[in-house]
Amino acid sequence: MNMLLIDPAELLAPDSAKVKGPRAHHLVHVLRVAPGATIRLGLLNGPRGQGQVLTANDEAVELRCFWDVAKPNVPPVDLILAMPRPKVMKRLWAQLAALGVRRIAIVNAERVERFYFDSHVLSPPFYRPLLIEGLEQSETTFLPEVRVEKQLKVFIEDDLKIWTDAGVRLAADVAAKQSLPEAWPAELAERAVLAVGPETGWSDYERDMFVRHGFRFFTAGRRTLRADTACVALLTLVRARLSPHAPLD
Amino acid sequence: MNMLLIDPAELLAPDSAKVKGPRAHHLVHVLRVAPGATIRLGLLNGPRGQGQVLTANDEAVELRCFWDVAKPNVPPVDLILAMPRPKVMKRLWAQLAALGVRRIAIVNAERVERFYFDSHVLSPPFYRPLLIEGLEQSETTFLPEVRVEKQLKVFIEDDLKIWTDAGVRLAADVAAKQSLPEAWPAELAERAVLAVGPETGWSDYERDMFVRHGFRFFTAGRRTLRADTACVALLTLVRARLSPHAPLD
Repeated sequence: MNMLLIDPAELLAPDSAKVKGPRAHHLVHVLRVAPGATIRLGLLNGPRGQGQVLTANDEAVELRCFWDVAKPNVPPVDLILAMPRPKVMKRLWAQLAALGVRRIAIVNAERVERFYFDSHVLSPPFYRPLLIEGLEQSETTFLPEVRVEKQLKVFIEDDLKIWTDAGVRLAADVAAKQSLPEAWPAELAERAVLAVGPETGWSDYERDMFVRHGFRFFTAGRRTLRADTACVALLTLVRARLSPHAPLD
Repeated sequence: MNMLLIDPAELLAPDSAKVKGPRAHHLVHVLRVAPGATIRLGLLNGPRGQGQVLTANDEAVELRCFWDVAKPNVPPVDLILAMPRPKVMKRLWAQLAALGVRRIAIVNAERVERFYFDSHVLSPPFYRPLLIEGLEQSETTFLPEVRVEKQLKVFIEDDLKIWTDAGVRLAADVAAKQSLPEAWPAELAERAVLAVGPETGWSDYERDMFVRHGFRFFTAGRRTLRADTACVALLTLVRARLSPHAPLD
């Protein structure tokens, strides 16, 4: 934990916070904070800052908070991800939050096993702590919005326009004919939505649907990567295209 | 496993192979191969191809091999990585092989805990199967060369020139002043060596040493990423700079 992320519910006043339970335990026993110590703070979906430890014991840690003025950067990418194997999804949550994604839609696809959607890795009590771990790792505060869409067609045809305002719509596919710079030439854009398919690719039907909705298909190369590696690599490529000088800002 | 990687020791003749032990068991019981089936093959550090299953049982699977003519692509990046926490390193091996790295030097640094080097994750019997898993995932055959260097100074000052012929030497650091396109303008290069430091960065002494040896420092942004996420993202950025149209080829 490089930064302690405070939930607004933990604020006693704008400049003081009380952290309880396992988080207090972690602060006291693992990070060994004691009264007087200063730690880095972030407010969920708010500013970053510094915390001065007032009291610290097994049950609770009280902090005086000094917030920076700057608001959080909203990450410039929305991600549509065909549900990978639950074990892989489990590894992805923290990494997605750490890299920075504004919205995540976990979607079904023809080549996704239906039973993946029964996994506990898709339940908010499971993934929220992992997202927060990722934010605390990267010292950022913007919690990605997550939705799970078992009906890809309904999501793309009816809800996509409301879900994202990103001008550039991209879809990654090993079998695509164009590279990212070909699919998305020099135009500037503020944000992008990126669709990442199953390891074995989108079906022809799905591909057509994405294309009809303005998605540009690109391939980053011939390697078939596991979904977690692929997501990190593809998000990095898209972010480097949006801001070549600070892709991981 | 998207491809079965054959070790040259498993060849009975140039066009036939016998796979034994746990690998045979996996082929028969998980992938359910049976005589007559065709599977994708790769020869370690050699060509890819197709295998026709001749016999298959718990103990051994015999294959007739049909090799492609093309040789493997040698990945264009060498990686110097400050040893991360063993748990993170464990997750990295397969991903590094899948992304494609020619050489990996796991090095010590001032901000690396010494006891990390006692971990079994640095022993060849542990990491070799993980590298092979990564190659089988990405359907490539080039096994990265690995070395572990507990004396960074000796490695950089004495051995680096022999270890890598990469013209472009890059070092990633959150605190660097230049972005990758600034540190490495338009020049073309065939290959690069990338140094990735500890999460908290290289020390001043180490930074000076890298600079004296021609490394250009760059930052990809302000996020502090876990070593596995950082490696995948940074390797992708460097590969996209080497070949914008096929970074993951």
